[in-house]
Amino acid sequence: MSDDSSSALLTDHYELTMLQGALHSGAAPRRSVFEMFARRLPEGRRYGIVSGTGRFLDLLERFRFGTGELDFLSDNGVVDDRTLAWLADYRFSGNVWGYGEGEAYFPGSPILVVEGTFAEAVILETLALSVYNHDSAIASAASRMSAAAGDRPLIEMGSRRTHERSAVAAARAAYVGGFATSSNLEAGRTHGVPTGGTAAHAFTLLHDSERHAFKAQLESMGTGTTLLVDTFDVERAVATAVELAGPELGAVRIDSGDLGATASRVRAQLDALGATGTRIVVTGDLDEYSILALAVAPVDGYGVGTSLVTGSGAPTVSLVYKLVARARGLEPDAPLEPVAKRSVGKPSRGGRKWASRRLDDKGTAVAEEVFPHDPSSGVGLRPLLRPLVSEGVVVGQESVHDARERHRATVAELPEQALRMSRGEAALPTVFH
Amino acid sequence: MSDDSSSALLTDHYELTMLQGALHSGAAPRRSVFEMFARRLPEGRRYGIVSGTGRFLDLLERFRFGTGELDFLSDNGVVDDRTLAWLADYRFSGNVWGYGEGEAYFPGSPILVVEGTFAEAVILETLALSVYNHDSAIASAASRMSAAAGDRPLIEMGSRRTHERSAVAAARAAYVGGFATSSNLEAGRTHGVPTGGTAAHAFTLLHDSERHAFKAQLESMGTGTTLLVDTFDVERAVATAVELAGPELGAVRIDSGDLGATASRVRAQLDALGATGTRIVVTGDLDEYSILALAVAPVDGYGVGTSLVTGSGAPTVSLVYKLVARARGLEPDAPLEPVAKRSVGKPSRGGRKWASRRLDDKGTAVAEEVFPHDPSSGVGLRPLLRPLVSEGVVVGQESVHDARERHRATVAELPEQALRMSRGEAALPTVFH
Repeated sequence: MSDDSSSALLTDHYELTMLQGALHSGAAPRRSVFEMFARRLPEGRRYGIVSGTGRFLDLLERFRFGTGELDFLSDNGVVDDRTLAWLADYRFSGNVWGYGEGEAYFPGSPILVVEGTFAEAVILETLALSVYNHDSAIASAASRMSAAAGDRPLIEMGSRRTHERSAVAAARAAYVGGFATSSNLEAGRTHGVPTGGTAAHAFTLLHDSERHAFKAQLESMGTGTTLLVDTFDVERAVATAVELAGPELGAVRIDSGDLGATASRVRAQLDALGATGTRIVVTGDLDEYSILALAVAPVDGYGVGTSLVTGSGAPTVSLVYKLVARARGLEPDAPLEPVAKRSVGKPSRGGRKWASRRLDDKGTAVAEEVFPHDPSSGVGLRPLLRPLVSEGVVVGQESVHDARERHRATVAELPEQALRMSRGEAALPTVFH
Repeated sequence: MSDDSSSALLTDHYELTMLQGALHSGAAPRRSVFEMFARRLPEGRRYGIVSGTGRFLDLLERFRFGTGELDFLSDNGVVDDRTLAWLADYRFSGNVWGYGEGEAYFPGSPILVVEGTFAEAVILETLALSVYNHDSAIASAASRMSAAAGDRPLIEMGSRRTHERSAVAAARAAYVGGFATSSNLEAGRTHGVPTGGTAAHAFTLLHDSERHAFKAQLESMGTGTTLLVDTFDVERAVATAVELAGPELGAVRIDSGDLGATASRVRAQLDALGATGTRIVVTGDLDEYSILALAVAPVDGYGVGTSLVTGSGAPTVSLVYKLVARARGLEPDAPLEPVAKRSVGKPSRGGRKWASRRLDDKGTAVAEEVFPHDPSSGVGLRPLLRPLVSEGVVVGQESVHDARERHRATVAELPEQALRMSRGEAALPTVFH
C-alpha cells in the first residue's frame, strides 16, 4: 500500500501534553538528546538485531499535523491552542544517528540517538519505539532461525497470525534477518520482499479428488510448482503428484505429522520414482528449535509462521527512549548536561553516547564499547552509529537488501557461541567508558 | 487515520494462486462455506473474547483490486491474465455470519461463517485471520485484566511495545474488553476510544527541578492533572505536589518499585496532607496477576502496556479459516456437502454449523452448543451467530461501544470459575450435535 497519510497520531496522548507543559514553562526549545536502548535482551537471548530503521525514517517524513489531526486534537481538548499552533508548523529539524538496520545489538547499545529541541524530539518517542520494538523483535527471532536453518531457505508465512499491518512489517524484518521469501503480497509491493506460495488444503478439498486438484495446479502453474501432499494420505499423494508431474515436479509440501520422519519417507519415495530433484518443504508450527532438530532430515526449505511473527517468545524487545542530556540553558549553543532518573529498578545512564564494536585480530567481535565522546576510528573499533537525519533531512535511507546484507555480515562477525540456540547471556559484554 | 486504501494485498500469495488454479479447473464458482474457529484456547485460558469484527467489515469493504494492486500482481507474475481480469471485477457477493464482537468463545466455536463461491471466499482468508487473531488475543487478555481490576479503571498504554498500527487496533480491542481509556491518539480518532495521559519522566528531567516541572504541568493542565512522582524520591515529590496543587490534586502516578507498598505509603501521606480525594494510579509491567495482587492496595487505577499488547503470553489465538462444505456441482443451488482434511493432528469438522449458548434457569452459561442446522430459538439457547454481510452488503457493523457492552454482558453470564486467573480448562464444554 502506498501510504502517504500522516503518522502523527500514532502517538501517546502524553507526548503532546508534555509538549504543552514545556511550551508553557519555556523549556520546550532546550536542546535535548534522547537515546533508544534496551536494558536487557529478551530472556535467554545472546544478541538482538536492530530493525525498523527504514520504516521509521519513512514515517518520520510523514509526521505532520494536518487539518485532520489538528481538528481531532482540538475537538477532544487534547492540547491548548498554543500547542495546536506549534504542531501545525511541526517539522523535525534536528539530527538522528542510529545503528544500521540489520546490525546486532546488546544491552545498553544506543541504537538510536535523537538530538533536537525537547519539543521536537520528545513527540517522536511513541512512534520510534513502536517501529523498532516490533521490527527488532521479528528480525531478532528471524536471525536465530536463519542460523538454525543454515543454507536451507526460510519462507515467512505468518501474516495470518498477526495484525494485518504488522504482517507487512514482519515480512520485511524477517527478510532483513535472513529469510528468503514471504507469503505477504503487500510486503512485496511496499518493501520489495520476494513473495511466494502455491496452495492450501482448501484447494484440494474443493475438487472432487486430490488428483483433480493436483492436475489443475500443475496445468495452471507448471511442473515447477509445490504440491501440498498431506490432505489425506501422504504416500498416495506423492505417488499421484509424480505420476501427474513427472520427475520434474518442483517440490512437495508437508504441513503435519512428524515432519522429519515424513520427510525421510517422502524423500525415499521421490527418489525411487526418479524425482531426485523434487524438493521437500516442511511447514507447521516450526521455530528455531524444531528447525535445528530437522537439520539431519532431508528437508529443502522451511516455512515459518506463528513463531516468527510473535518473535518466538519475545514479541517485543523492551526498547526504551530516554532523555539522557539537555542543555543548561535555552540558547542553541548552551552546553549539554547529562540527566537520569533514579526510579527504583529502572536506572538510566545520563549523557550522549557513541558506540563501536571491538574486533579481535581475526575480525571476531569481542565487545560493545560505549563512549561519552566520539572515539573516532580507533584500531579494532568498528563505529556503529551512522547519520540518519541531518538537520531535519533524511540522509540514511537504505534498501531492505542493504539491511539484509548488513545482517549477514554482522552475524558472521559474532563469536560462535552467539549463534547457539540454547538459552544464554549476551554474547558480548557492553563496556561503558 | 481515515484510511480508504485497498486492503487487497494484505493477503498471502497462495490465496491468489489457488484462485488461479480454481479458475483453471472450473471449480472457482462452486458454492463453499468457510468457517473460522480455534481448535483450542491459549494454554491455561478459560475463555476467549471475539474481537476484530468491526475492523474486518471495514477492511472487507476496501478489499478491491485497483490499478496499483493489479500492476504489482502482473509485474511480478503472481497470477495469470485471466486471474487478473477476475480480480479487477472482484466484489464479495456472498453472506457472512459471525459471533458478535465482544462475545466469549470456546474451542470449536464457529466465530465466523463465510458463504459464497470458493473464489470469492477463499481470498478473504488471510485478512480475516490477521484481524481476528490479533484483536481477539488482545481483547481476551483485556477481559482477564478487567476481571482482575474489578471496578478500578484500566488505562491502555502499550502502543510503544507493538507495531504502530497494531497499537491502534490493540487500544480498540482493549476498550472492547473493558479498559476505560487508551494513550493512543489514533485510536481516539479512528475508533472513538477515550484517550488520556499527562507526562513522563523526561518532562521532569527537562526542567531544572521537579518543582519547576510540577508547577508548569499544574498551571498548564490544571490541578486535576496526574503528576508522576517517582523520578527522584517519591515522598518528597508527593509533598511538593500537594504543596503546589493543594488538596484538589487529581492524581499521582507511581511507575516503579514495589507498587503496593509505595501506594500504601503515598495514600497515608496524601491523607495526612488533606488530599483525601487525590487518586493513585500505578503503572509499570502490570499484568492480570499483578493487578489482582494489588486488589488490597489503595490504588485507584492501573496503566497496562506490554502485557496487554502482547496478549499476556498469547499474542495470537490460533484461529484458523477452513473450508467445511462445498457444493456437489457448479450450479448455485447444488447441495452442499461437508469436507474435511485428515492431516495428522489437525483434523477439521466438516459441514456448515450454527451455534448457541445454553443457559441454565438462572441465566448462567453452561455449554457452547454447535448444531448442523439452525436450532431456531430453543428454550435456554441464546443464538450466537448474527448476520454480518448479506449478499455482499455489510449489515452487521456496530459501534465499539456496543461491542464493549456485549463483552460486559457475556462475561456476566459466564460461570464464576471462568473468571479465575489460575490456569484452567475451557469454562464451558463445546457440544457438537
